[in-house]
Amino acid sequence: MDTRKLRINGKRLRSTLEEMAKIGGTPGGGVTRLALSDEDKRARDLFVKWLEELDLKITIDEMGNIFGRRAGRNNDLPPVMTGSHIDSQPKGGRFDGILGVMGALEVMRTLHENKIETEHPVVIVDWTNEEGSRFAPAMVASGVWAGALKQDWAYARTDINGKKQVEELERIGYKGTAPAKKWPVHAYFEYHIEQGPILEREKKTIGAPKGILCLHWYDIYLEGEANQVGPTPMEGRHDALCAAAEMILKVNELPGRMGGNMVATVGEIQNYPNSRNIIPDKVHFTVDIRSWDDGLAIKAWDLVKKDFQNIAGRRGCPIRIEETWRVEHAPFDEKLVQMVMDSAGELGYSYLHMVSGAGHDASYMNQICPTAMIFAPSIGGRSHVEVENTTWEDCEAGGNVLLQCVLKTAGAAQ
Amino acid sequence: MDTRKLRINGKRLRSTLEEMAKIGGTPGGGVTRLALSDEDKRARDLFVKWLEELDLKITIDEMGNIFGRRAGRNNDLPPVMTGSHIDSQPKGGRFDGILGVMGALEVMRTLHENKIETEHPVVIVDWTNEEGSRFAPAMVASGVWAGALKQDWAYARTDINGKKQVEELERIGYKGTAPAKKWPVHAYFEYHIEQGPILEREKKTIGAPKGILCLHWYDIYLEGEANQVGPTPMEGRHDALCAAAEMILKVNELPGRMGGNMVATVGEIQNYPNSRNIIPDKVHFTVDIRSWDDGLAIKAWDLVKKDFQNIAGRRGCPIRIEETWRVEHAPFDEKLVQMVMDSAGELGYSYLHMVSGAGHDASYMNQICPTAMIFAPSIGGRSHVEVENTTWEDCEAGGNVLLQCVLKTAGAAQ
Repeated sequence: MDTRKLRINGKRLRSTLEEMAKIGGTPGGGVTRLALSDEDKRARDLFVKWLEELDLKITIDEMGNIFGRRAGRNNDLPPVMTGSHIDSQPKGGRFDGILGVMGALEVMRTLHENKIETEHPVVIVDWTNEEGSRFAPAMVASGVWAGALKQDWAYARTDINGKKQVEELERIGYKGTAPAKKWPVHAYFEYHIEQGPILEREKKTIGAPKGILCLHWYDIYLEGEANQVGPTPMEGRHDALCAAAEMILKVNELPGRMGGNMVATVGEIQNYPNSRNIIPDKVHFTVDIRSWDDGLAIKAWDLVKKDFQNIAGRRGCPIRIEETWRVEHAPFDEKLVQMVMDSAGELGYSYLHMVSGAGHDASYMNQICPTAMIFAPSIGGRSHVEVENTTWEDCEAGGNVLLQCVLKTAGAAQ
Repeated sequence: MDTRKLRINGKRLRSTLEEMAKIGGTPGGGVTRLALSDEDKRARDLFVKWLEELDLKITIDEMGNIFGRRAGRNNDLPPVMTGSHIDSQPKGGRFDGILGVMGALEVMRTLHENKIETEHPVVIVDWTNEEGSRFAPAMVASGVWAGALKQDWAYARTDINGKKQVEELERIGYKGTAPAKKWPVHAYFEYHIEQGPILEREKKTIGAPKGILCLHWYDIYLEGEANQVGPTPMEGRHDALCAAAEMILKVNELPGRMGGNMVATVGEIQNYPNSRNIIPDKVHFTVDIRSWDDGLAIKAWDLVKKDFQNIAGRRGCPIRIEETWRVEHAPFDEKLVQMVMDSAGELGYSYLHMVSGAGHDASYMNQICPTAMIFAPSIGGRSHVEVENTTWEDCEAGGNVLLQCVLKTAGAAQ
């Protein structure tokens, strides 16, 4: 058959997504399916049952990553791999992560029922704990698998109740025996919601990110002078919260000042003693700067750092700055990104060459094999919230693009 | 004898203050003597022992307030009363509160050893839980005594471990049997550290506050839109923390804009979800405005409220404002305030007619009898911190002013 005419079953994709959304479903219409929780276990069990129905060779590795392998004509060739993650944020959405796993499952089902043969084997994957919201950091299991993170260190990460990640892997029965260690991969595709408003704004169905933005994290610590507010005149105060407020606004203005092409955010702040009648004497806040242009991000930081120092000096609030984390921008494989766009075009979908502002398991895969992602539009750009949403038509469209990309890279007979 | 020549014993005052500072003393040079703690009990026991040495009639009321009464020539006359509080802030200073109790004790000792007779009886008082830092609110026991607060309600206040105030009163053995109920008082003097930098700045030894500033508290709740920071462009964001930052600066600028004569502070802020890679979607912060001029404080609030609404509108962050608490400014008795200044002058001390920005037990006493306060300078204006300090010379000077005011109002033979 002409595999270019092959399509996934959009209704079936919708029903698997709806069935998954029941596991950990919240009254607000989202899901809470934290990594290695009972809900994660139930979702994994269902996923494995569905893999078994397709006669895939199932492997669970020591990090709990679940692989389902469909043989190719030449099993010495490295497989094409696709998948994402089943875990969610607390009160997260019904699409983040799970769309990429159920989308890949739908591709596998389509190959199966059409008895499609491919040169390369095809592997579907569910990566453990992508979100990092129960056990920090994020993307930990793909990181171990790709060789970027140490397994013992990952095992020892604890949740808020002091439970170790390895204990919870064992408890839910998903600490497998296969080594969590990379093998040669021919191509990796990850299908995911955009988590931003660009596709919706541009009225495009498919996003083809050219890569992931650089990510720079900073931690700022300010000191002021605590005093009873009533008897302390305004002149001579050293109010650490006022200094922080000025700095937060400088961060917010930074992208505009740099001429765009970046985002800059203060998401976290701690204020001490945090009492309504005491002048704040200690503030900690974070800065997150992301851009496709690493140099621009550094230049922006240098600029805002000078602002910080001026504000701190003027307000008499000593400042300590930690340059916490810097990840360079990660360009995906150009040919695969082009393949995503070409496939979308062939299928009659509008598409956009864009960037990914968020990190994904694809970041680690990108370090070891040709990688690309397929984005579906997020309604209102919302994600990590219960109202996160994507139309079923768009879910189906992304699934068809994934199917075509898998067929092309795995070498299907036409 | 000519009681105008009578002086307290500055060395003895210092040694009682030093002995008290050992109870709950912290390595940083302050004290932690929380209301109704073991440290409070030890300090009370020592205080009562010292009162017994002066043959005072000791009464402990149902709120744990400790009174020591020295008979006058005419015991039908209402007494002159003076005192403050023994409890401290966590890691508080060695002068806040205790100076007014030990200063009053030193006055009593001076009267005793000089066998001074007064027309009116003289009562020394330690008010329970002025700070409110273990059991909120502050000044609770003088409030009950003055009839402004309900005793049952005060009893039911709990600390962070869920212990009720009444249970802790009983536990330390200071739940007395006398009703916590006001009786006629001829005059009330409270000697206290300034807790601000004005006296030091003006190089004055004695402060005579004409009263306590008005106190207006507001609570602001902002809503934004939470989103992953990476994929969400700057345009179209609804960042509740940025809105709050603008508002915090508006509050800080408010006194300057109103031409002074007020203070305005944001001391407390909560930010949600408070995660470095999520745009804040909920912020709560407090506003504290104080002025001698109630009308000016209201005018300032009306102005800044409009700013808040404009900022909220411009940033698309719905705002909810609670006008939490308003206490009008409380002018002390003019004659007694003048007496504090005259006494300071007669003793050769420089003095300043000023205001009190902080609340004191004197606020409730002011509602039921002629009241005044005597302020001693705070070094660097610091209070509620371990480095809180006042020179021994200044402690002695304030004690002498208190002595003269007690002698004058109690009607001592000259």
